[in-house]
Amino acid sequence: MVMKTNTRHRVVILGGGFGGLNAAQSLASAPVDITLIDRRNFHLFQPLLYQVATGALSGGEIASPIRAILRLQKNVRVLLGEAIDLDASGRRLITDVGPIEYDTLIVAAGVRNCYFGKDQWDRVAPGLKTIEEAAQIRQKLLFAFEAAERETDRTKHAEWLTFVVVGAGPTGVELAGAVGEIARQTLKEDFRNIHPEDAKILLLDGADRVLPHFHPKLSASAEKALKKLGVHAMVNVRVKDISETGVTAVGENGEIYIPTRCVIWAAGVKAAPFCDTLAAQAEAELESNGQVIVQPDCSLEAHPEIFVIGDIASYNHDGRRLPGVAQVAIQQGRYVARLIRKRLRGEAGTRRFHYFDKGQMAVIGRGRAVAESRGLRFSGFSAWLAWLLIHLVYIAEFSNRLLVLVRWTYLYFSFSRGARLITGHDHLLVEKMVPECEEEDVAV
Amino acid sequence: MVMKTNTRHRVVILGGGFGGLNAAQSLASAPVDITLIDRRNFHLFQPLLYQVATGALSGGEIASPIRAILRLQKNVRVLLGEAIDLDASGRRLITDVGPIEYDTLIVAAGVRNCYFGKDQWDRVAPGLKTIEEAAQIRQKLLFAFEAAERETDRTKHAEWLTFVVVGAGPTGVELAGAVGEIARQTLKEDFRNIHPEDAKILLLDGADRVLPHFHPKLSASAEKALKKLGVHAMVNVRVKDISETGVTAVGENGEIYIPTRCVIWAAGVKAAPFCDTLAAQAEAELESNGQVIVQPDCSLEAHPEIFVIGDIASYNHDGRRLPGVAQVAIQQGRYVARLIRKRLRGEAGTRRFHYFDKGQMAVIGRGRAVAESRGLRFSGFSAWLAWLLIHLVYIAEFSNRLLVLVRWTYLYFSFSRGARLITGHDHLLVEKMVPECEEEDVAV
Repeated sequence: MVMKTNTRHRVVILGGGFGGLNAAQSLASAPVDITLIDRRNFHLFQPLLYQVATGALSGGEIASPIRAILRLQKNVRVLLGEAIDLDASGRRLITDVGPIEYDTLIVAAGVRNCYFGKDQWDRVAPGLKTIEEAAQIRQKLLFAFEAAERETDRTKHAEWLTFVVVGAGPTGVELAGAVGEIARQTLKEDFRNIHPEDAKILLLDGADRVLPHFHPKLSASAEKALKKLGVHAMVNVRVKDISETGVTAVGENGEIYIPTRCVIWAAGVKAAPFCDTLAAQAEAELESNGQVIVQPDCSLEAHPEIFVIGDIASYNHDGRRLPGVAQVAIQQGRYVARLIRKRLRGEAGTRRFHYFDKGQMAVIGRGRAVAESRGLRFSGFSAWLAWLLIHLVYIAEFSNRLLVLVRWTYLYFSFSRGARLITGHDHLLVEKMVPECEEEDVAV
Repeated sequence: MVMKTNTRHRVVILGGGFGGLNAAQSLASAPVDITLIDRRNFHLFQPLLYQVATGALSGGEIASPIRAILRLQKNVRVLLGEAIDLDASGRRLITDVGPIEYDTLIVAAGVRNCYFGKDQWDRVAPGLKTIEEAAQIRQKLLFAFEAAERETDRTKHAEWLTFVVVGAGPTGVELAGAVGEIARQTLKEDFRNIHPEDAKILLLDGADRVLPHFHPKLSASAEKALKKLGVHAMVNVRVKDISETGVTAVGENGEIYIPTRCVIWAAGVKAAPFCDTLAAQAEAELESNGQVIVQPDCSLEAHPEIFVIGDIASYNHDGRRLPGVAQVAIQQGRYVARLIRKRLRGEAGTRRFHYFDKGQMAVIGRGRAVAESRGLRFSGFSAWLAWLLIHLVYIAEFSNRLLVLVRWTYLYFSFSRGARLITGHDHLLVEKMVPECEEEDVAV
């Protein structure tokens, strides 16, 4: 179909994560007017968020203002705002800034934490989606050591020094490994009443091994590396309840209770709330976790002018549902941009989206990682070096890349974590803080 | 007096700012057991906080965990906690962690923002004392540009793009200069509906010139440099009211109303609340702003074993009250440590505290500053270079120094401000955030 009007073709992109940003950038030289709308004024490099949560990096070092990234691309207008509703027949996105008309809409609104119906857990077991949540995790983590040091009743030390990470996917493994490193190395000399290296770090998962989506050999290798950092993997375990003072879990040997003051959630995500709007207004079909089921070209069946990409989309790729990782979002963003150009030129018969799987990796503390790519498997230092290079290359802004490199170099040789500040409005009353759900889930 | 007991002499230090930290470090080899207690787990390099507020640096880059700094000094125990009361005759500091006995107490609790009886202004005009307040100012500042871009009613653009800084001391001048730089340079290309360089930046002060404590020639030079950055200094002006939508001020020509959505407070400080405890429990005399009047050796008249140093102290130095700057706190901390050593050795006749005035400086945007030191006066690039070197040398931790250098180098050549993120729990509703008062006021 050829689209011709007196004005330029209007593309509205909802979300400035990996998907939305790549779509906008790939449309740089196209004859379109783009509006990119996001609730936050920055693009977040999600794969490194666990390093902010564990005090290795500052939030600002893994985030770049969206305006700064798109500064010179004159066909993009960036808007700080929220989508409230959709008028699909009138082709208008309703936002808190007013309605925005579009010819093509790209929804890349991401995901948020999912507690499987137990939303009250978000107060005691923050997930890792936003910069604020990362700060909250850091707060809980570091405060636990402080509280143990303050505590005169020695029997309570163990409770403060037990850390539970729920979910042993890449994010959970990376978090648990970093907590182990903090306890064993970073804080080694810092306290006088407690021994941080006595900390008990438990990594819980319902599957029968850590990193269940990796090859079993890599799972075994990861578990070994975790053990060296003092992380004990508890598999085949399901969380039944989380309170301010402990976790109740059900394993093969029945119910167990783990007294702990610091629980981190890395177990599940669900689609951003806009998925319900798409279902109600654009006849979108949803998965049980809210993800929007899309056509082979990433559009909606009833509305070929609406594309849904990235983590909020459920894409069936040769019988397999694509994972919620940065690479999928990036490639879908670029694919959709190409498709829009083709439609504008009047070309038909577009190929379906094809995902080029570069592989997956997870880092476990300093100098160790596991990685698999196109049939090859690595673990140990070589995998970690690969991880390091890939992540540095991908960090959006040049200045940040250098900053992160400086931080990492220093961290590598000193074990110090310069950014381990307890901040926030209730720094002494961490339990009070309520996390906020946000876009983008990515695990490279 | 010789102090001898079976146990070691116990020194309790309240506050881990410049004063408390230097006192602790100078007692490293002394035969004492030190407890340093602070409400925060980090030492903040206050003189650069305005750069966090204006998006040039991340909070983590100017803060270091107190534990990390004192890690290897085995005679120090660091405690995260708050002082609640004092039992001066029993020599016990009452904290939220319980009572702590001391032989010598050093109070270095700092200052907080003072609104001269109008405490309700703190909601609309945050001051610059804590990392959280810096983030709040950054939020207000950057959100104003976003809101202007969103605003379809063009008559309201001016309101959003008017920025008022109250107080033209070094902090106010540095903040206003940085806001000017953001509007004129950093954001130049970032917006499509508004022109950030149209921003009106007003710097208000009750005195007859900016930097009233500097030589008049430097004030004139600073005002000229500010003008180039679009900052208009309004002197001889008193603030009468601040609301969410404007500032009412009284000048020589009567009352004026300035419609604005972003007001920053840099006009005054008062002593931390612990000053009242000292007055009630240790017969301390207070100035009208709460500062504790100390003896020539920084102790209290009624309690020679209690020292009060840094910004919370009012020290009369040859008829002049010492300013609340880092240098005074650092030198007092070191002096008090020396005095304690002498007392432990039984030496009498200690000299009074002598302040070595190294001078003062204020930076005005990229590559410009004013400085005066021991009768010499500089302005322009040479003063800025001096400022740069001095600040890099003083930043506490090595890794931070490198990070800040990388950031600054990049900023200098690119005008980019990598850390300009709008974060916090009400990032779209900035007015809701209530700041929190905190220790340490320092303007080097």
